Order: sequence, then structure tokens, then C-alpha cells
Amino acid sequence: MRIVQKYGGTSVGSIERIRHIAGLVAAARADGAHQLVVVVSAMGGETNRLLNLARELTPTPASREMDALVATGEQVSAALLAIELNRLGIPAYSFTGSQAGFFTDGPHSRARIRRIESSHLQRRLDRGEVPVVTGFQGVDDDGNITTLGRGGSDTSAVALAVALQADRCDIYTDVDGIFTTDPRVVPEARKLTHICYEEMLELASLGAKVLQTRSVELAMRYRMPVCLRSSFTDGAGTLVTEEESAMERAAVTGIAFHRDEAKITVRGIPDHPGIASNVLGPIAEAEINVDVIVQNVSEQGFTDMTFTVSHEDYTTTMALMRELQPSLGAREVLGDTGIGKVSLVGVGMRSHAGVARKMFETLANNDVNIQMITTSEIKITVVVEEAVIDRAVQALHAAFHLEQEG
Amino acid sequence: MRIVQKYGGTSVGSIERIRHIAGLVAAARADGAHQLVVVVSAMGGETNRLLNLARELTPTPASREMDALVATGEQVSAALLAIELNRLGIPAYSFTGSQAGFFTDGPHSRARIRRIESSHLQRRLDRGEVPVVTGFQGVDDDGNITTLGRGGSDTSAVALAVALQADRCDIYTDVDGIFTTDPRVVPEARKLTHICYEEMLELASLGAKVLQTRSVELAMRYRMPVCLRSSFTDGAGTLVTEEESAMERAAVTGIAFHRDEAKITVRGIPDHPGIASNVLGPIAEAEINVDVIVQNVSEQGFTDMTFTVSHEDYTTTMALMRELQPSLGAREVLGDTGIGKVSLVGVGMRSHAGVARKMFETLANNDVNIQMITTSEIKITVVVEEAVIDRAVQALHAAFHLEQEG
Repeated sequence: MRIVQKYGGTSVGSIERIRHIAGLVAAARADGAHQLVVVVSAMGGETNRLLNLARELTPTPASREMDALVATGEQVSAALLAIELNRLGIPAYSFTGSQAGFFTDGPHSRARIRRIESSHLQRRLDRGEVPVVTGFQGVDDDGNITTLGRGGSDTSAVALAVALQADRCDIYTDVDGIFTTDPRVVPEARKLTHICYEEMLELASLGAKVLQTRSVELAMRYRMPVCLRSSFTDGAGTLVTEEESAMERAAVTGIAFHRDEAKITVRGIPDHPGIASNVLGPIAEAEINVDVIVQNVSEQGFTDMTFTVSHEDYTTTMALMRELQPSLGAREVLGDTGIGKVSLVGVGMRSHAGVARKMFETLANNDVNIQMITTSEIKITVVVEEAVIDRAVQALHAAFHLEQEG
Repeated sequence: MRIVQKYGGTSVGSIERIRHIAGLVAAARADGAHQLVVVVSAMGGETNRLLNLARELTPTPASREMDALVATGEQVSAALLAIELNRLGIPAYSFTGSQAGFFTDGPHSRARIRRIESSHLQRRLDRGEVPVVTGFQGVDDDGNITTLGRGGSDTSAVALAVALQADRCDIYTDVDGIFTTDPRVVPEARKLTHICYEEMLELASLGAKVLQTRSVELAMRYRMPVCLRSSFTDGAGTLVTEEESAMERAAVTGIAFHRDEAKITVRGIPDHPGIASNVLGPIAEAEINVDVIVQNVSEQGFTDMTFTVSHEDYTTTMALMRELQPSLGAREVLGDTGIGKVSLVGVGMRSHAGVARKMFETLANNDVNIQMITTSEIKITVVVEEAVIDRAVQALHAAFHLEQEG
């Protein structure tokens, strides 16, 4: 059994935590993971400490140097964990991204893994040693230290599991796994023992911040089983794998929601081809992510377009739209920051009819007014007033009996 | 003009200090150092912070991992300095020991530089860029991170200056240069504008902790001029170079002294060949450094041997000697922790007669009792009671007129 374990920042946040993690590694070895690679993040707070040092010098530090600076964070936690594993009698060796053979391309602080030259780690594994690898970082072809940006550590772990043809990648965080929805909103929310990549992707992109989209996409592409579990509590966690087609499935697996959304409506645009790109092109150029998009014909020869962005991008986007308004010939631009979205997610939807109808009925029965709707094959998303999100999620969780095992 | 500058831990000890250092680098560039390489230590206190993290886990951390851990200290200061230099419009790039091509051998935490593959830095210099290199570290042939141990950062800088065929290596610390003796003991002590490698070696090994012996030896071997100067005050510092034979020199360049010494005397050893190695061999095996050694015939067929060690090694050494006493057939073992040593240093001694006589006369006139004497070509050392060291140094400084330019 060959396993890649990954521990995030809170999991290695202190010397005591590192001691605890070393115990988990020892237990996994004793428990049949004869070949074990550990990927670590920086100790919680360390990356911010380093960023703040640089920001004391300038608000716009050179990106190559920022990567060299923050990459030390993981190097420290990897070395400390290797020290503790050695103390326990486990032959462990720390490796930086460069030493572990993570070759990247793309810009600094947002590099992407191009290949992993894993023969060195492979030899270590064959000798029964435990490589402790820094997540989040690599090296480009000119030997410059790079970092992978958001979600990079999870991506490092999954990519390494793929390169080493591991049996599984275990991602340890401070949550027990994936739940049917946020237990703070629905106390009956149930931990899922199993979820498929597609569902995980939808849940992750909808705000379930357990596992970054990037790493799920990678796991899905290479069919690498990923287990999400807690380093703070015992428990099997949630296994993310391919869809098990033989299994009878419930229509809905989980409910995701997101509060900090804003809605912008451009009304009365003369209707001709290219409106969508005229409206959305400049937003994309400004590197603003647009989420839900709906376009309707409003009256003869005119159309309305409504889309959502995150709260933090609202002011910039509104300014941009008002600037564009004359050239678009639009009648008016309206904004609303008091909205959010609720999504039902489940691969079972494909084979279950009536999920959408049941969703809309449930919301109507609970006085939830739907402002926008979008659907995909395995997801139905509604945009609603922010104040009613909790009520909507609770009603849907009950209506689809998510508290019960599918 | 190609110059390697090195800044120690206090010189880069805070964000403000790093800003200041960047200013010094900019000034040196403006002042004709068209090709400039900067070598940095970890920010003052950072190495201890990292060591303490490891010690919380175990008193005996794996040495390979300790090297990986503490090497991050220099990486942080190099990146921060490069960030600040970039902010000033100077094209600067940080390099770890590995990236800069420092290949080492020998054990972890005490590695030695075997070669520097400097072609990469060379190209950077040719393009007018400023490489900022981490001192104190390198990489072995298996790609493991190594550290050079004590005095490693100075050695990194001198070795890099040699590899790059620099015109000079400037070592910045928190002192203004080399003085004729410690100004805290002799207020008239004068800063030397020039000193030769041999004198610097004797002064360094005698406790003038400005520049580590290892780096002086390296500079001497390759005739690399080294300038010792302060990063806190302006001033030309002290230039360490080859002896300028044409120059008329004073007999004595400086006075070094060392307080924390202990003296051990083994009395009445039956006199036959091999006594010195019988006594000193086991001490060397215990990795204790013996400093002054004197052997005398005491009476017919018996000999006495006296040597000094540092205070911290006294207890271990005494225990070792008492253990050896029976097999040596020695009459007694005596110890004294209340001693120190005073040394006159100067290449001019070679051509000036009477330096020793004048030294002993001066000490006698000032009631300083000499317990041991050793001499080399450019140094006379006396071991005296610790309490009289200041008086001895002051009297000698005045007698040899060291407050006046030679």
C-alpha cells in the first residue's frame, strides 16, 4: 500500500501539532501503509508572518523573491516533522519542492506543476524511508523557486500521488470530511463517506473550502482516490473517487451555498449578436470572476443581462459597467449586494427526474423568492436574497432527506 | 571593480536594517562597484528561533534536517534584501547555497566548501544584476542541504570572491574594524587601516572575534583582499591583505587577550618518549581544543606538562586527566581556572630584535607575574593570572606606543 498524506497549515500549526502528526504517520505505517510520503504546508501563520515582513518593505515586492521567501515556510515544517519522525525511529528525510523534483511553469506565485521527476523519492520509498515533501512549491527550468498559489499544497500532494502511482492521497485538514451541507446551518447535516469527483468539484467551487478545485480536477483526470479527513479527530473521513455506477444513488448528494455575492443587471441593451462578449469581455480582462449569468429578452429588440460577482469585486465591476453603458446603448445598470446562492449537487440527478421541480416547490412553500436560476447536469443553482439562505438550505436538506444515508 | 559584500546577522537584523543595507549596496554601485555580489547571514535571532523549535522536539535532532531547517534563515534575509533592492530599482535576485552552486562535502552542520559552480552568477554579473546569496550553506553531491558551521558565512563570502575573481571581499559587521587592542580595556586603542593575513589569523584565533579563522585562511591562500567594516557607521574599516614588504613597519601591530582560560598541570611524569601524545591524545579524541602547551623537565627522570583549555572544557579535561594519571604514572594533576593569556602580534617582530625582552620587562615593572610563555614567529603569548590581564594589556599598549600610527 503506497499512500501520500498531506497535512495543512493548522495540522502542523505548532510543535505539539507536529508531534501529533508524527504519531499519525507512525500509526499509518504500522497500519499497512508500508510506503508513505508526507506533504506538508507551512505552519499556520508562518506564511502571513513572511508576507508581512516583505510588505513592511514595499506593497509590491518582486514576485520571484516573494516565492523564495514564502517557500521557506514549508521547508521549516518539513524539517521539523522529519526531525520528530527520526526521533520516533522512522527514517524520514525532508525535501524542498526543488529537491523532490517538482518542475513548474507559469508566473511566480501562480506556477503550475509541469512534471515531477520522482525517481529520487521512488528510491527512498523502495528503501522504506519516509520522504517529507514541502507542498505548494517547485522550481522552474532556470532553477528559480516557484510557488503554486492558492490550493497549491493539495495540488502538490495529488500530483505526487499520481507521479508515484500511489494507491491513495489522504488530505488531512481541520474538518472531518464533506458534509451534506454546513452543520452550522443544518445541525442534522451528515458526513458523507463517499463522493465522486464531479460532485466534489461542484461543492468546492460553491464554497465548500475543504479541497481546492485545482487538486480535485487533477485527481479526477488521473482517477486518484482522495480521502479527506481530520488530523484533529479520528474517523474515516470522506473518500473522493470515481462515480460508482453500480450503486443505487440518491438524487441529491449535498447542498452548497454562498453568501457573499452581488448581482449586476444591465437593462435594455439593443439586441444583436455579441452582447454577451461586449458585456463580459471587459470584466474578464479586469480579472474579475463572473459566476451565474442569465440573459433574457426583455421587450421587442432589447435584452437584459444579469450576472453575479463576489462582494469584493462589486465596486470595480459596477464602475466598469457604468463606463460601458453608453457604448452598449443600455438603458440602465442596476446593482444588488444583498444576494447569495444555493445549489443542489448530485450525480444522481442525471437519472432522477423532478429534482428541479421539487426544489422550486420547496422554496416556494418556504417563502423563498428565486431571483435567478442556472442548471448543469449535476447541479441546480438559485440566486436568492441573502437573508433567506439559511431558511432555504434547511428546507431543502429536509425535503431531500439528506440527514439519512442515501 | 567587482566586489563581494557580506552582511552578518546584526547587519540584517530587522526590516529597518535591511533597508539600510540596501542603501549601502546602492551607494557601492554608484561608487564604482559595477559588479556586486551580496552574501547575507540570517536575521539576528532567527537561527536561534529555528534551533529552539527543533529542541522542543528533541535534544538530538537529525543533523540533515537541522541543516534544512536553519538554512531557511539566510533564504529569508536574502529574499527580503532582494525585494528591497528591486524596490530601489536595482535588478537583484536571491540565491540559496544550492542555487548559487556551493558544493560541499563533510558532515552536516560542519560541511566544507569543495567547489563553487559560479557560471550562473557570472552571467548575472555580466548583465549588471546583483546576486544576493545565502551565506553559511551549500549542497552536497546527493542534493542534500548542508551548512558550514561556525564562521561559515564569512567563509562563503571569501570563497565566492575567490571563485568570481573579485577585486575585494567586504565583510560588514557591527564593529568598525580591527583595533590595536580592545578599546574597552585601552581607550587609546587605534583602528588599524591595514593588517596582514598572518596577523589577522593570530588575532582571530586569540579572541578578536571579528573574522573567523577559517575565512582568513582561505583569503590568505588565494590572496583575496578582505575589508572589515561596519554596516552601522561610515569609515574605511581595516584592509586585510598580504604583508607589504616595502613598508617600514612597527614591531608590534596589536595586542590580543583572552580571559576564559583554564590551566592544567600534570606533575612528575616519568620522562620517556611519547609523553606529550599520551597526555594530549585522549584530549584531542574528546574533541577538546588545547591552546598553550609547555613541557619542562622538573627533576632527574621526571617531567611536568602544563596546558590550557577553555573554561567550558575545564571540568571534562580535569576528569580525563585524573583518569589517565595512574597509567601515566604522574605524581599529581593540578588545575587553575583563574588564568588568561595576553599576546603581542606583529609581522614586524621578525625584523625587530628585543620585542620579547621589552614585553617581559614591561610586565615585570607592572607587577604582572608570567606563568607560561610561548612564542611563534609573529607572536609572543604569556599566560597570566586573570585578574591582571587589563593591567598587562594597558601597560604593553603604552610601552609599544600602539596609540600612534606605526
